[in-house]
Amino acid sequence: MLNERMYGLGSKRSTIRELFEYAKVRSAEIGAENVFDFSIGNPSVPAPDAVNETIKRLVAETPSVALHGYTSAQGDKTVRDKIAENYARRFGAAISGDDLYMTCGAAASLTITLNALYETGDEVIVFAPYFAEYRVFVEGAGAKLVVVRSDEKTMLPDFETLKKAINPHTKAVLINSPNNPSGVVYGEDVMRKLCDLLKAKSGEYGKPVFLISDEPYRELVYDKKTAVPCPMKYYKDSVVCYSYSKSLSLPGERVGYIAVNPQATNAKAIYAAVCGAGRSLGFVCAPALFQRVAAECDGMTADLSVYKRNRDLLYNGLTACGFTCIYPDGAFYLFMKAAEADTQAFCERAKKYELLLVAGDDFGYAGWVRIAYCVNTDRIEKALPLFRKLAEEYNLCK
Amino acid sequence: MLNERMYGLGSKRSTIRELFEYAKVRSAEIGAENVFDFSIGNPSVPAPDAVNETIKRLVAETPSVALHGYTSAQGDKTVRDKIAENYARRFGAAISGDDLYMTCGAAASLTITLNALYETGDEVIVFAPYFAEYRVFVEGAGAKLVVVRSDEKTMLPDFETLKKAINPHTKAVLINSPNNPSGVVYGEDVMRKLCDLLKAKSGEYGKPVFLISDEPYRELVYDKKTAVPCPMKYYKDSVVCYSYSKSLSLPGERVGYIAVNPQATNAKAIYAAVCGAGRSLGFVCAPALFQRVAAECDGMTADLSVYKRNRDLLYNGLTACGFTCIYPDGAFYLFMKAAEADTQAFCERAKKYELLLVAGDDFGYAGWVRIAYCVNTDRIEKALPLFRKLAEEYNLCK
Repeated sequence: MLNERMYGLGSKRSTIRELFEYAKVRSAEIGAENVFDFSIGNPSVPAPDAVNETIKRLVAETPSVALHGYTSAQGDKTVRDKIAENYARRFGAAISGDDLYMTCGAAASLTITLNALYETGDEVIVFAPYFAEYRVFVEGAGAKLVVVRSDEKTMLPDFETLKKAINPHTKAVLINSPNNPSGVVYGEDVMRKLCDLLKAKSGEYGKPVFLISDEPYRELVYDKKTAVPCPMKYYKDSVVCYSYSKSLSLPGERVGYIAVNPQATNAKAIYAAVCGAGRSLGFVCAPALFQRVAAECDGMTADLSVYKRNRDLLYNGLTACGFTCIYPDGAFYLFMKAAEADTQAFCERAKKYELLLVAGDDFGYAGWVRIAYCVNTDRIEKALPLFRKLAEEYNLCK
Repeated sequence: MLNERMYGLGSKRSTIRELFEYAKVRSAEIGAENVFDFSIGNPSVPAPDAVNETIKRLVAETPSVALHGYTSAQGDKTVRDKIAENYARRFGAAISGDDLYMTCGAAASLTITLNALYETGDEVIVFAPYFAEYRVFVEGAGAKLVVVRSDEKTMLPDFETLKKAINPHTKAVLINSPNNPSGVVYGEDVMRKLCDLLKAKSGEYGKPVFLISDEPYRELVYDKKTAVPCPMKYYKDSVVCYSYSKSLSLPGERVGYIAVNPQATNAKAIYAAVCGAGRSLGFVCAPALFQRVAAECDGMTADLSVYKRNRDLLYNGLTACGFTCIYPDGAFYLFMKAAEADTQAFCERAKKYELLLVAGDDFGYAGWVRIAYCVNTDRIEKALPLFRKLAEEYNLCK
């Protein structure tokens, strides 16, 4: 009498949610200061001051009906024009406001894009480790998720496996850089190689294999040399899915965008299908006030220095203990190899020290764990001696 | 290479949108004061002062990470508890915060509910005239829309036709009272008769035929005696879809809720399926700041006296001209019979007088037109002499 898939999705708690609930219970038992919850990817730094200042100014200055009224379905025109102008200047890809569709955040950007492109029999390729909701979104659109395992040394795409996975049913390759859960950033060389392959395959099949670039962590990179390459400069059949959740620290407000590369094959038709998918899924427009906040604050970031400090402290501390870690150039996650074959058993052992880690199984990558370091720095300082004890149990320390 | 249905939905302009664009062009030609745009159902009165005051207070008092952070997927617990408590007090139906799921507005409430309930072969019954997007939402969930024509004298459900339309494939009957486009409110007698029928059919089929009540206009009723009956008090297998767009005049901010009747068959499973559908469609949570605004302002309304004045002026004026009109007890729409068989031709003739009306065809009810009276009162005062001229063309005036 109801939809079994939806019931399954709604009734099965995710591992992350389980850990979150466990942390609450455990905190009540032994005090929150003694529980080290590295499970949740929730920004821990405030939004830039400009966010609240913009809210206050808009509320004071704008008539209510204009401020809180419907915008057009694709987003307020002034908002789109301003963000597009910034985009062109920041990334060197000439897009206009008519190529942008404002969304209720990254999840909406992805479901709308996937539904807009989906045709019967389609497959969408992702690289493991991958954000667990990708499976939900891809299957929700009707398509099949095809997982290509990344190279364990680098967590970068394995091109040999990718070549074999792409076939005439492949509608798109979906990338996420900086990556959740590995923190890895795809550099220019990887982007070029990937796009060259997609060009060749598109040519071979006589129809585009799209590149969908999910970029909620785009601004969260910690070294000057590391910048996220703009996919539009490498490949015409590309769609960028963005969210302001992490860059501006406002994940609860649900605002982001889809940028359809104006050079894409049938770009205008794709944009129309995006509008249609937004309508069909029940997104009338992105939240009006926060559309305007996003336009005002586009390109700004919350204070990311805490994340960088945490990254350095954690990576250096864990490798000093003998753990094998992927160096995270971006996002606020560190991917660490479990010190035994059974990932769940490793996580349980970490729990003994009150260290709450997410098993890589959730990201299609068993044998590894994700550590979310978007926490106060003192949590990491206090956790490192516990990680050392965990390492000692496995004789990792040199 | 893309989804044809989504392309169709995104590329075909709705009649209402066409009229809206026409109004802009025509206003540039002859001046906005000479164009009478009755096409759009956009609230024309400001939000209650409490809305902006609450925004200012929350921004001043709440730490950024707490204010703008993710809420739980079903909505902030405090918000849900407060709204549920109000609901129980206002409508006499005992629900708790755990029966409420906060959404990004009415469209999201509907798509999530429909996706949560959908099984292969399902049908959903609506009463014409019906809000045009119902077809998009029902078909988007995979179900078949079955239209039952309302009685032309009253615009109330025709129970004989309804009885014939319900069958074992009927998953739900979807009602909208106060109604867009007719402005009609289903009174207690209609609600009771409808629910008795659904009870009988559910018993006959051995499974519930759900009642989905779409109530964005719930608070927009203009006579003391007219109150919208709470479906939960008449029928256990009911789901209420609500939005604050019209009651608080903030349609752009996208906030509403789904209330699953805790007495429903498998209520907990339905609620879980709602959570799953929200996840699958890409709604992570309803906008966080406006969830809290909604909780603070729940039960308040914008100043509705303008709509009531407009309603009275328009209804009296049009009937005095000889037009046949349905008396609108609620919402901000008036449904008027076209004065000739060809509705489009009638609308074109109205256009000669710069009167922009929406043909009922869009609402599955040809032969009638919708007049949205959420405008400044002077627009109606100035339009009435033009309506009179239109009536004279058809010799309607007595």
